[in-house]
Amino acid sequence: MTALDPLRLTPQRIVALGGGHGLAASLLALRHLTPDLTAIVTVADDGGSSGRLRTELGILPPGDLRMALAALCDDTARGRAWHELLQHRFTSGGSLDHHAAGNLLLAAAWAAEGGVVAGLDRLGELLGVRGRVLPMAAEPLVIEADVVRDGQPDIVVTGQSRVAVTSGRVTRVRLLPENPQTCPEAIAAIRAADWVVLGPGSWYTSVLPHLQVAQLRAAIHAASRVALTLNLQQQEGETDGFTAADHLRVLREVDPELRVDVVLADPAWVDDLPDLEAEATELGARVLLRQVRADDGTPRHDPLRLAAAYRDAFAQTWGDVGE
Amino acid sequence: MTALDPLRLTPQRIVALGGGHGLAASLLALRHLTPDLTAIVTVADDGGSSGRLRTELGILPPGDLRMALAALCDDTARGRAWHELLQHRFTSGGSLDHHAAGNLLLAAAWAAEGGVVAGLDRLGELLGVRGRVLPMAAEPLVIEADVVRDGQPDIVVTGQSRVAVTSGRVTRVRLLPENPQTCPEAIAAIRAADWVVLGPGSWYTSVLPHLQVAQLRAAIHAASRVALTLNLQQQEGETDGFTAADHLRVLREVDPELRVDVVLADPAWVDDLPDLEAEATELGARVLLRQVRADDGTPRHDPLRLAAAYRDAFAQTWGDVGE
Repeated sequence: MTALDPLRLTPQRIVALGGGHGLAASLLALRHLTPDLTAIVTVADDGGSSGRLRTELGILPPGDLRMALAALCDDTARGRAWHELLQHRFTSGGSLDHHAAGNLLLAAAWAAEGGVVAGLDRLGELLGVRGRVLPMAAEPLVIEADVVRDGQPDIVVTGQSRVAVTSGRVTRVRLLPENPQTCPEAIAAIRAADWVVLGPGSWYTSVLPHLQVAQLRAAIHAASRVALTLNLQQQEGETDGFTAADHLRVLREVDPELRVDVVLADPAWVDDLPDLEAEATELGARVLLRQVRADDGTPRHDPLRLAAAYRDAFAQTWGDVGE
Repeated sequence: MTALDPLRLTPQRIVALGGGHGLAASLLALRHLTPDLTAIVTVADDGGSSGRLRTELGILPPGDLRMALAALCDDTARGRAWHELLQHRFTSGGSLDHHAAGNLLLAAAWAAEGGVVAGLDRLGELLGVRGRVLPMAAEPLVIEADVVRDGQPDIVVTGQSRVAVTSGRVTRVRLLPENPQTCPEAIAAIRAADWVVLGPGSWYTSVLPHLQVAQLRAAIHAASRVALTLNLQQQEGETDGFTAADHLRVLREVDPELRVDVVLADPAWVDDLPDLEAEATELGARVLLRQVRADDGTPRHDPLRLAAAYRDAFAQTWGDVGE
């Protein structure tokens, strides 16, 4: 039990990086552990509602930021109602079709507050979210990938929405611009964090991008502790044929200097444990196996199981270093 | 002072009927007098953001309902921020141009709650509004007007947005459908009200429609007390050349059985007081003159002056009947 004490005695500052459903899963779990939670969110989406708003209004793609806000709505009737409203998608034969109401509300908040972080903070406050949502960059990003298809030479695929569903195997991803305007509040949050959490999520389009911006990468390298959460299955178009260990290998290719304290995986998906442990060791991490998958047959993380796993991950490491 | 006691001792149930800026002006005043305030709002708008949403999503035009919600946001930093967000209009070269963020949020609430009143109540609760906002009918309405122009025979102008800016003089307005599906909660609110307030607002398109639906009209006839608030100027396209008394005359033409307790007018706009008083007498009302116009040069009601005038209007009548 003593290993858990730090979690009880010290409110931990936790920063979760990612995008989309993966980040939302992390946030739904981490909110059980701390009130001091910051989401740092990819801003490279160019498909669907986000893509259209990005083009029409010249704003950051709001979708992943909206999902993070929704995940942080508090667990009351009021919070659940806001969650539902933010996530509501219009259905029509016209131009609103598939727009998420929360994307539009966030766009309005940005315009009303005259700034990205000010708008996110204000909307978060109005919605009563627990924690803070920040973008990984202060300008919209474009993801460009080299893809191998049927043994042909590399094809360049541009745009997150196309990369995420490309046939063939992604061999490399780049961000455009390479050195985007960063969000100072996001960098500061990582530097101040007790724990930084990477993953789960679309590996190439939601997880890796955070390691591809120099200032974010430097902040992650300097972070107190880093936890990496693996996905629960391969993702078509991004990680077909990947073992758990392959996910770590890709991470090290993109960022050879990355150091991680703990790699969290569900045993049901790890059939290459020795390989995974070897790869984890290269990152300086050990592997924590916990049953975190939901029972509903979907490849989703169960929020409470994942919360328990994060608690163990954070506490074990604390225990090890004698704190 | 005794005349004011009933307002202090008994929380008054007040219902304000109208649409657009006129209703918002009433609500901004009445919220100072009672926590039990219901807005009943025209749903005939077919122009701008509301008109497009009505067509695209097959919903009630949300604009006037949104303005009422915004007017009832409470007077705190949070309430003011919600007010600003609801009223924010997008500016783009694309399909979102001129949509009000609050219109989209209301459309989402209707879809999420699966009903008009449920959606308005839920959104009102989430925004922390004081009071309740209800539609005058449960289905979208169309306003059709007979207009005399340059002495030509009557021209039929269809649609609130066209009627409101038509050149020529409106001689008659109709609602389509003539007997719309009503909102039972609105009828019940009028029946339960201590005071019903009509006007100010666009006379033909925001005030008269409430007297043109049989069930609403019957509820207004049965209401405890009715106050009528006049506009502060003629409105181009609707009431060009109208005196204050002409406004009452039109009301009586549309609804000969209407009985009103008090007609509230700003003395600066009444240059036909004997005529106005004669018309008011026909309605069973007396005229209360109060300086209610704002000092900023606009033809707007000042919320606190109007609140004071309503207080006097309500209290004087209470005093007269010895309650």
